[in-house]
Amino acid sequence: MELYGYFRSSASYRVRIALHLKGLPFDYRAVHMLRGGGEQLRDDYRALNPDALVPTLVDGDTTLQQSLAIIEYLDEIAPEPPLLPRAPAERACVRAIALQITCEIHPLDNLRVLRYLKRTLGVADEAKNAWYRHWITKGFATLETRLANDPRTGRLAYGNTPTLADCCLIPQLYNARRFGVDLAPYPTLVRIHDHAMTLDAFRAAAPEAQPDAE
Amino acid sequence: MELYGYFRSSASYRVRIALHLKGLPFDYRAVHMLRGGGEQLRDDYRALNPDALVPTLVDGDTTLQQSLAIIEYLDEIAPEPPLLPRAPAERACVRAIALQITCEIHPLDNLRVLRYLKRTLGVADEAKNAWYRHWITKGFATLETRLANDPRTGRLAYGNTPTLADCCLIPQLYNARRFGVDLAPYPTLVRIHDHAMTLDAFRAAAPEAQPDAE
Repeated sequence: MELYGYFRSSASYRVRIALHLKGLPFDYRAVHMLRGGGEQLRDDYRALNPDALVPTLVDGDTTLQQSLAIIEYLDEIAPEPPLLPRAPAERACVRAIALQITCEIHPLDNLRVLRYLKRTLGVADEAKNAWYRHWITKGFATLETRLANDPRTGRLAYGNTPTLADCCLIPQLYNARRFGVDLAPYPTLVRIHDHAMTLDAFRAAAPEAQPDAE
Repeated sequence: MELYGYFRSSASYRVRIALHLKGLPFDYRAVHMLRGGGEQLRDDYRALNPDALVPTLVDGDTTLQQSLAIIEYLDEIAPEPPLLPRAPAERACVRAIALQITCEIHPLDNLRVLRYLKRTLGVADEAKNAWYRHWITKGFATLETRLANDPRTGRLAYGNTPTLADCCLIPQLYNARRFGVDLAPYPTLVRIHDHAMTLDAFRAAAPEAQPDAE
């Protein structure tokens, strides 16, 4: 398999975690999102990913986009260890945590959105960074309440073994730290993050462990 | 089952389509997002949905959030008719279309985002509406290319029977029309929409068919 990604892209990071959790070998193809006007915008990459987003996973004849679709695919072709529980209601719980991050937080803080704020709307850097933090802190407050009060929360977001929810949560915490978000109000999220980072798969998937890390 | 939703919320609309496709009876509980400062912000609703978003599905003891997690749940508890193909690569294709809408288009045009642009960043109405159209037209251009060129596209987004992709696409087209987006550049999307609207489930799920429609 080949994973096209960018070390700092949290969507790429999610898929790297899943690949490492599954123990699936893959070739990493760096797509530098800031270099040369953005390598993701080049025609050869757009042939793989028309939306010009990372990651893309190529598995033989199959080209896959969208991190959650890719992770569900990996969970279907390589069921062990499972990244979702068995019971439908429990699967929905894990997916809801993942989607709360991937639909409610991350899309608003994407590179192209921040560029639109700055270049098209003329938003000053300070207000742009406040926007970034606003959607993270709003989303994290909800997640903290949810995970702190749900008896299903364990050492990780759902129980004690990694799930799709952790694949999404850990990269979002990495982003938050990078942008100086105060994480003190989210002790449960920090505790889960710190436990995840003791696990080999999460360490191997971390941005700083990638060949394109700066 | 009880579905808490709002007639115009496209996330609610997605779940209504899935429920009608499955033929699952449900009680519709309207949560008026504009009335009284937003009924979704009330404590009783937040007990069901801490993120103060619609929809929420209550199925016996189980309370579910996030439209895609809910639809996957419905597909698991009521497998017929299936909303996803069988093969992992095909499932990933359908999920990627759905996620391209739910992660790349819709979150940017959410009510609370538009409010932040206006109230916090002081963006004028005209620029705010341009923002709205920007993310739709950018996302639709990619979707149009994808669906127009993929041999798997049929009368609907994937083949000729409704899938998770159609549950997401049709509400997004409804939104686009409501905000005056010119749909002429997206003939494949319009063709799929028009076919879907000949089907009972899509008609029953439409915003104007809901008891809270204005």
